[in-house]
Amino acid sequence: MHVDELPTPCAVVDLDVLKRNVRTMADRLKALGVTLRPHVKTHKCLEIAALQREAGARGFTVSTLGEAVDLAEAGFTDLTWAFPLILNRLPEVRRIAERATLRLLVDSPEAIDALESAVLPPGPPGGAAGVECHVWLEVDSGHHRSGVDPGSAVAVELARRLHDAERLVFDGILTHGGHSYRGKNREELLAAAREERRVMADFAKLLMSLGVEVRGVSVGSTPTMSVVEDLDGVTEARPGNYVFHDGMMCSMGACSTADVALTVLSSVVSSQPGAEHSVIDAGALSLSKDPGLDWVEPASFGRVYRDDGSGEIEPDFWVEALSQEHGIVNRSLPVGSRLRILPNHSCLVGPNFDAFQVVEGERVVDRWSIRGLGRSGGR
Amino acid sequence: MHVDELPTPCAVVDLDVLKRNVRTMADRLKALGVTLRPHVKTHKCLEIAALQREAGARGFTVSTLGEAVDLAEAGFTDLTWAFPLILNRLPEVRRIAERATLRLLVDSPEAIDALESAVLPPGPPGGAAGVECHVWLEVDSGHHRSGVDPGSAVAVELARRLHDAERLVFDGILTHGGHSYRGKNREELLAAAREERRVMADFAKLLMSLGVEVRGVSVGSTPTMSVVEDLDGVTEARPGNYVFHDGMMCSMGACSTADVALTVLSSVVSSQPGAEHSVIDAGALSLSKDPGLDWVEPASFGRVYRDDGSGEIEPDFWVEALSQEHGIVNRSLPVGSRLRILPNHSCLVGPNFDAFQVVEGERVVDRWSIRGLGRSGGR
Repeated sequence: MHVDELPTPCAVVDLDVLKRNVRTMADRLKALGVTLRPHVKTHKCLEIAALQREAGARGFTVSTLGEAVDLAEAGFTDLTWAFPLILNRLPEVRRIAERATLRLLVDSPEAIDALESAVLPPGPPGGAAGVECHVWLEVDSGHHRSGVDPGSAVAVELARRLHDAERLVFDGILTHGGHSYRGKNREELLAAAREERRVMADFAKLLMSLGVEVRGVSVGSTPTMSVVEDLDGVTEARPGNYVFHDGMMCSMGACSTADVALTVLSSVVSSQPGAEHSVIDAGALSLSKDPGLDWVEPASFGRVYRDDGSGEIEPDFWVEALSQEHGIVNRSLPVGSRLRILPNHSCLVGPNFDAFQVVEGERVVDRWSIRGLGRSGGR
Repeated sequence: MHVDELPTPCAVVDLDVLKRNVRTMADRLKALGVTLRPHVKTHKCLEIAALQREAGARGFTVSTLGEAVDLAEAGFTDLTWAFPLILNRLPEVRRIAERATLRLLVDSPEAIDALESAVLPPGPPGGAAGVECHVWLEVDSGHHRSGVDPGSAVAVELARRLHDAERLVFDGILTHGGHSYRGKNREELLAAAREERRVMADFAKLLMSLGVEVRGVSVGSTPTMSVVEDLDGVTEARPGNYVFHDGMMCSMGACSTADVALTVLSSVVSSQPGAEHSVIDAGALSLSKDPGLDWVEPASFGRVYRDDGSGEIEPDFWVEALSQEHGIVNRSLPVGSRLRILPNHSCLVGPNFDAFQVVEGERVVDRWSIRGLGRSGGR
């Protein structure tokens, strides 16, 4: 099938660009001497996880237990749930831990209390005898969302509790350099990346000096991992967005528009005589209402690619408004015209669709399911 | 099960409030002398469609063909796809029309050309012999998104083409009074509602005077239908949001916070010493990134209900930021605390979840599936 025959709206993945992105990040992190544990929240797709494993990924990162269930069922059995433990989800954690090594994330005494009082089963064959539960301590390396302040007494205290707990395996310290999303160019991304590494390496050293063994130091975000030049003291990285990239990554200088593997294919459904806009069939449930980076001009919900295969976007052409299924673009075009849209935030696009339409050039070569259970944090 | 035992995040529907909302709108429109054809895009849920039918709904409105497939399979066979025809979806339209009366929406010569050249099957038994395809002409009654300008020559010309087309059944003229979402109080909603009615009734009269028979005049939005006092010249209304309401409806004065049937139940997962915020497990894939109405202060992604069952929201307490699965609220609360959140826009909440958790008071009484095919406009 030719891409022009695809019903719209749909989520299109360019296989060549995807494979290049998967390979580039894997090679980068290998050269920097750390393990790649990619975050699947961006794609929620088993075929892409398999490509990442082929490229060298060791273990995966999930944002929801739904993603963990799907991956475990498909034989991906070394998983980190990189979200602060939801205390009321321990029964599900227990079930998943019966078939996979599920590594949890905590940053509070309440979460450690809950884990210590929960009875978790031993890990799969090959795990240490009597292993109950793998746990990372989340550290705030500058994002100030979650994670302990590495300069605080409580950070050391929680690390020591995890290390000393008989029924917990302390995997180490973990951070998400989410403050890199405030960066406006490669230099600012690099500064965030250096801070992320430095804070974590220093905290690991501090803990070691206090007798708290730190087996792993996990960092990661696509912006920081795209530019970082030194990961000394770090053991693994967890970028996710890099498989697709998106408009935000382009604006930050983490990639070019030709490096974006996920686009939304849309068509014009209404265009009135005299109007300066057209209505397209990609609305908030295709593109998401993510406004992108607040300093990018013009503010838009997506940019439109040139139709010449150059990988460049059209100047002065964007999605200016969204309702549930309607999108508004700032040009008047004939009904039936097809547009390929660069979304602001690819992580919020995939979950809206049932599948990715996979293309090689202009040819549709596959259809990859987006896992249902991974759609939301809930059930 | 008690509501406090529900795993979080989840989408909670208060059955009493839902039934009251369903009944109130049905009674309102019955008293105003028009047929109710509710929009299912807000709930995408067969159980709620059944409640609407019990309360008197005649036919349903969908925003996607996925919703139409799901409803048709469940025996809801009189459907209006209230979205400008996507020309490349005609093969699916044809399949759905084999089992249901699917009424389409057009506002362009291109769409009429496409329909006239497409071969559509006759409707189900009971339909007029040789009926090929039911079509509404979309009219712009003030929203300026899609729909023909009723004062233009092209509007009359398209109506006449639909009326005269041998293989099309001209159902009439249809509008969505979406400009009502710019209203800041009941008076402004009422002004939008009056304009919506007047524009449509006048255009119908004009067409009739020109010999174009107009069988139906369809209007509707929850804000306008919540306040309108006169629907003279209108035959049917298509509100959707009213089953749940949401923060936007409260701000506009279309309802009170006690009339909101859909809330997101969330729990605190991270709260650092000294921080003035907590992290909750309801992020963009639970609440959506819909910012709500731009004039509402404070800007937020959701407000938090009091936990006293009063149906009132807490003052000075809101969701201030969202990432994919993380939400940030502006209070420091113990990890494990549960919060019930009033979302800005309920239509964008349901599609993120697999099911609604249905409660009566504090008791969970049912779990209603949200239809998979209805998740997005795409496939």
